[in-house]
Amino acid sequence: MSDQEQGSLGERGLSGDPLEELKALDREARLLEHSGAVLSWDQEVYMPPAALDERADQLALLQSLAHQRDRSPRVGELLEQIRAEEAAPEGLEGIFLREKHRSYQRSCRVPDRLVRDLARTASQGQNAWVAARAENDYERFMPWLERLIGLNRELAEHLGYRDCPYDALLDQYEPYTSTAEVAGVFRDLREGLVPLVRRIASRPVPDQSFLRKSFPLEGQKQLSREVMVALGYDLDRGRLDSSAHPFTTTLGNRDVRITTRFDERAPESGLFSTIHETGHALYELGVAEELAGTLLAEGTSLGIHESQSRMWENMIGRSRAFWSHWLPRMREIFPDQLEGVSLEHFYRGINRVEPSLIRVEADEVTYSLHVILRFELEQALISGDLPVKDLPDAWNRGMKDLLGVEPRDYSSGVLQDVHWSMGAFGYFPTYALGNLYAAQFLRALEKDLPDLWEGVARGEYAPILDWLRRAIHRHGKCRSAGELVREITGGPLDSAVFLDYLWKKYDEDQGR
Amino acid sequence: MSDQEQGSLGERGLSGDPLEELKALDREARLLEHSGAVLSWDQEVYMPPAALDERADQLALLQSLAHQRDRSPRVGELLEQIRAEEAAPEGLEGIFLREKHRSYQRSCRVPDRLVRDLARTASQGQNAWVAARAENDYERFMPWLERLIGLNRELAEHLGYRDCPYDALLDQYEPYTSTAEVAGVFRDLREGLVPLVRRIASRPVPDQSFLRKSFPLEGQKQLSREVMVALGYDLDRGRLDSSAHPFTTTLGNRDVRITTRFDERAPESGLFSTIHETGHALYELGVAEELAGTLLAEGTSLGIHESQSRMWENMIGRSRAFWSHWLPRMREIFPDQLEGVSLEHFYRGINRVEPSLIRVEADEVTYSLHVILRFELEQALISGDLPVKDLPDAWNRGMKDLLGVEPRDYSSGVLQDVHWSMGAFGYFPTYALGNLYAAQFLRALEKDLPDLWEGVARGEYAPILDWLRRAIHRHGKCRSAGELVREITGGPLDSAVFLDYLWKKYDEDQGR
Repeated sequence: MSDQEQGSLGERGLSGDPLEELKALDREARLLEHSGAVLSWDQEVYMPPAALDERADQLALLQSLAHQRDRSPRVGELLEQIRAEEAAPEGLEGIFLREKHRSYQRSCRVPDRLVRDLARTASQGQNAWVAARAENDYERFMPWLERLIGLNRELAEHLGYRDCPYDALLDQYEPYTSTAEVAGVFRDLREGLVPLVRRIASRPVPDQSFLRKSFPLEGQKQLSREVMVALGYDLDRGRLDSSAHPFTTTLGNRDVRITTRFDERAPESGLFSTIHETGHALYELGVAEELAGTLLAEGTSLGIHESQSRMWENMIGRSRAFWSHWLPRMREIFPDQLEGVSLEHFYRGINRVEPSLIRVEADEVTYSLHVILRFELEQALISGDLPVKDLPDAWNRGMKDLLGVEPRDYSSGVLQDVHWSMGAFGYFPTYALGNLYAAQFLRALEKDLPDLWEGVARGEYAPILDWLRRAIHRHGKCRSAGELVREITGGPLDSAVFLDYLWKKYDEDQGR
Repeated sequence: MSDQEQGSLGERGLSGDPLEELKALDREARLLEHSGAVLSWDQEVYMPPAALDERADQLALLQSLAHQRDRSPRVGELLEQIRAEEAAPEGLEGIFLREKHRSYQRSCRVPDRLVRDLARTASQGQNAWVAARAENDYERFMPWLERLIGLNRELAEHLGYRDCPYDALLDQYEPYTSTAEVAGVFRDLREGLVPLVRRIASRPVPDQSFLRKSFPLEGQKQLSREVMVALGYDLDRGRLDSSAHPFTTTLGNRDVRITTRFDERAPESGLFSTIHETGHALYELGVAEELAGTLLAEGTSLGIHESQSRMWENMIGRSRAFWSHWLPRMREIFPDQLEGVSLEHFYRGINRVEPSLIRVEADEVTYSLHVILRFELEQALISGDLPVKDLPDAWNRGMKDLLGVEPRDYSSGVLQDVHWSMGAFGYFPTYALGNLYAAQFLRALEKDLPDLWEGVARGEYAPILDWLRRAIHRHGKCRSAGELVREITGGPLDSAVFLDYLWKKYDEDQGR
């Protein structure tokens, strides 16, 4: 331990207990990460524009100090010492050591040079993407995409994998799963979704015009705030603010904030974003107190995270039962705008399904098809089967096959998403996995709470939140996504339950 | 350099140039301080209450990491190496090394144990003070005050001093000055103020009733925002928010934020707080770009800082010329409340002088007497001439002598201020020094800008701000308070100019 660090680490480290020293290092890394989250939140919500450059330097330093604590050779020594000295710890300490070892191993495998290259290229690539999208110029983005794919291939080789390089990339966002497993469930999902979408597309589109009137923002904020509090979000442990893109961020184990974006002529947009982010926040806030301040105190995978946001947003928030309670309240706030709009009219309007070009605007049925397209394309890009120059054609062909629509330009097609420009490959599938997990969890929830929908119709969500906390939230990273699914449903990840949910809601129209 | 730190320091440190390594360490400490300022700002303005404990841990870690970079033995080695190797650097680098050496020396002299003791006792002492003030129970606070005085005596011994221990304490807030110098000017100040206060107190008190109507907060915020922008505050480099106590904080060299507190029935309170804090912020924002990110990029002393806030708040903001421009605007916002209130009526109302018990509510004339009392008492407490048990009597006697009023209880007397409970001795005098510096700077400003007050009457402050930036702000910590005063006025710190300003404004009533 250096003099530099003696003040912060020494006192606990000097106890001589390697596990305690390891915990102290982990605790500091988490404190630094949460401090960085405060700075990032401020940057998106309140920071004056001239502060941008120095804020980047502040964030880079905090991140670097956190990384040093996570991948310091000292961590390796301590892990080794614990392994040699003691009987393998059990319970929580065993899990802590397993995850600490896993994260340390992963970071050791990747050379610093590659980490820096990826960060720099991603930052420049994102700038290039912004310009390319604005000018509908795919060629401008191509060299960056080439480089980012190359760096991701390198990354996969360093991280290691069982079957294919994409395994290693996916594992960053959805740990302990495999490309083959995801590909399997997505194949079934695709086979089930495409005919459903065709069928819905053959019918008249429900009216949404009543949502395109003017809904003053103050009223929208009021409604969002009431809904999030009703769902169980504690405003003593978070905040709702506005930002360019909605997000959830963890600034501390008791400080998980969300943002949303309100549009005067689309009140459903801000409200469902709020419910979505509330779902993420409730997950982070529900982690057991005993895990607080450790690397175990966060969502176990992005897919499970997305299951929480999508269950609340789509399965509960877009149900008839939910709106039988909230439509009267919304009508109090917006009496003129909602005059003569029946529950059924409203319900169908907010559940309109229509194949479209843009993923982030897609409905609950078509959304997963957007994701499947990206999952297939990025596997082919990483394996080299799909050259970067052929990507736009493959994209357009895929859209036609899956959704029956074709982009007129790059900007509403292959250039629409930020992820690849940031060098994030393996991230997209977690969005659709969230839908599948959510449907499987909801089925178990319905079994355990037979009067679930009666409660929703009364505006009472505490039994649902209690169930989610007990079954999922409190475990943090102690259980993997696969373990949670098996524990809760008795079976593996499976797309049939989600398909069943969609067919019932959208075809038989037995939805709530 | 340890492995822990190699990522953040190594790259620059490895260049082998000790000055560059020293600058890099300094830069990191400043980035960590500014990051901590973001967290503190958030805590006061937007943080949800349950986050308090973890936020304290985050802040403690950032502070400790900043301290490590400021007082690491490596700093001492580098300073030594530079001194041995090179010809003494001149210009900015020379000043940087001088201040770096000074701050390093001071921190080396104080043992870690004492730093920790002071921090812990101050934190507990503040809690005890809150309870003691609420219950008007001086005895409850006594043991804490005893301990904090004892620790400050120890601190002074470690820091070292020329004439008396109080020198060392004062130097923390007003560097390069001495107790004897301050005592000298305060003696003159006291002698000039006491008769002025008596004289004013013998006359009828100006009416303020028009300020006690209801002034809705939205209008107050609008006015405050317009005034701060007119004064030259750039909202691209800061923000105005509300908090329990108004403050200014530097989150980065281009991000200096202020807060204020609005009271529906005291519109002058929020507005003058805004102008006061704007004065502080303009100082920090005016530091030369070449100093950005170094320990030189901040106000040179608390007294000079206070001179900026008080000049804008009292000398400009409470002038007739200022309100000849702003009263019409305020009347547009609050037409009913200000109906029939003439400029003269308004001017006299906001400049009402009345001896009172509470420092933070005191007017521009009596304010310095509150400070002089505290300055005299804390010297006697530190020297041991005044036992803690006798403090309330000494306080009450002092109030009677200086202001002709006597507290009925401890809470509005000796227990009113937080400073001593935080272990801050030597801080109070900087408040009154600010008044003296401000008056001396204003006189120089009036000489250089003969149509100063015509500009103020037109709402034009750019010439004033330009002058302050050139004469004071841009220098940051490169010039000491004494150097600035001598450079700008040709003479030393002197209370005669401030007294002259007050007598003219309040007795002859030739104010603007």
